[in-house]
Amino acid sequence: MMTPTTTVPATVTAFDLVSGLSAQRPTLRRRLSAMAAMYADVEAARAQVERDDVLVYEFYDMGVPETSGDVAYGTSITYPGKVGDEYHMTKGHFHSVLDTGEIYFCLRGTGYMLMENPEGDWQAAEFGPGQAVYVPRRYAHRSINTSATEPLVTFFAFPGHAGHDYGTIETRGFRKLCVERDGEPVFVDNPKWAG
Amino acid sequence: MMTPTTTVPATVTAFDLVSGLSAQRPTLRRRLSAMAAMYADVEAARAQVERDDVLVYEFYDMGVPETSGDVAYGTSITYPGKVGDEYHMTKGHFHSVLDTGEIYFCLRGTGYMLMENPEGDWQAAEFGPGQAVYVPRRYAHRSINTSATEPLVTFFAFPGHAGHDYGTIETRGFRKLCVERDGEPVFVDNPKWAG
Repeated sequence: MMTPTTTVPATVTAFDLVSGLSAQRPTLRRRLSAMAAMYADVEAARAQVERDDVLVYEFYDMGVPETSGDVAYGTSITYPGKVGDEYHMTKGHFHSVLDTGEIYFCLRGTGYMLMENPEGDWQAAEFGPGQAVYVPRRYAHRSINTSATEPLVTFFAFPGHAGHDYGTIETRGFRKLCVERDGEPVFVDNPKWAG
Repeated sequence: MMTPTTTVPATVTAFDLVSGLSAQRPTLRRRLSAMAAMYADVEAARAQVERDDVLVYEFYDMGVPETSGDVAYGTSITYPGKVGDEYHMTKGHFHSVLDTGEIYFCLRGTGYMLMENPEGDWQAAEFGPGQAVYVPRRYAHRSINTSATEPLVTFFAFPGHAGHDYGTIETRGFRKLCVERDGEPVFVDNPKWAG
């Protein structure tokens, strides 16, 4: 017979509200070389990797139990930059359990949450400090930093059992790209989209 | 036969990172008169209500679907003040589905998250800007503002199906109170605890 667990210590983590980072834990880091093929201008991506394999984004996995009673959370930091005329972005993913949503709360920076569902809809929601974007169930989501200088820092939370499906986006991409035109971010069709 | 929903608009809400408030939605507001009996010094609470029925805290219910695939979220603002020597606090609650946790991310202020479970454990975790407190499953939780001047502003997220059980705490209270002694917050036994 198992002894019931009567004490579960609360996890307390200090994040810096400016950098988004915590000194208490390591982040998962994604350099450009890990996602060069996701950008439209693959040549520009490869040339940048040759010059400097820049850190595009980093985020936390806090190791919360993967149950529907728990809430996975952490911060995500996408650094400013472009690959060709395409803004720095996260890989983006569906949840393995497709019918799960996610909340992103922007602490700093400027950008977009790009979303699309398997049924054909896509949306982009603007991020600025204090903006909360609730990603509906079934929507793949990617953070995009459109600032020339500031990191995009968000605090996120999703159901513990949601899981991550990165493969679908790695294979077919998002329907839309976010590129700079006349100094402004615009969303254009992704010519490589393989939906 | 139902037509499948192929488009679910993302909910975007702007919160002020200093006040914690959003101009887009109303808050749920708890004045002292709604919780006077929860304070140890009920006479002090009633006298304060006579003078001025102060707003103790307010928070958002964003109306997220109550499913395990969704994440309820919002901000909570507990205003500074004391009732006798007991610091301003939220009512506190268990989740109706006891085996659900919650994340609180402090944006501003100073205080504690007070927690207790039915098995007899209690804990208090400090809140300061950037501190994330993960409330484990089975723990009732209450925010306490120990600052003399600043609101305690947190961003919270919990499983959509968790529900709220306020009645248990309203009936029996928390095991511990947070009171000021020599200018510092300390946790003492709640003489009225009815566990």
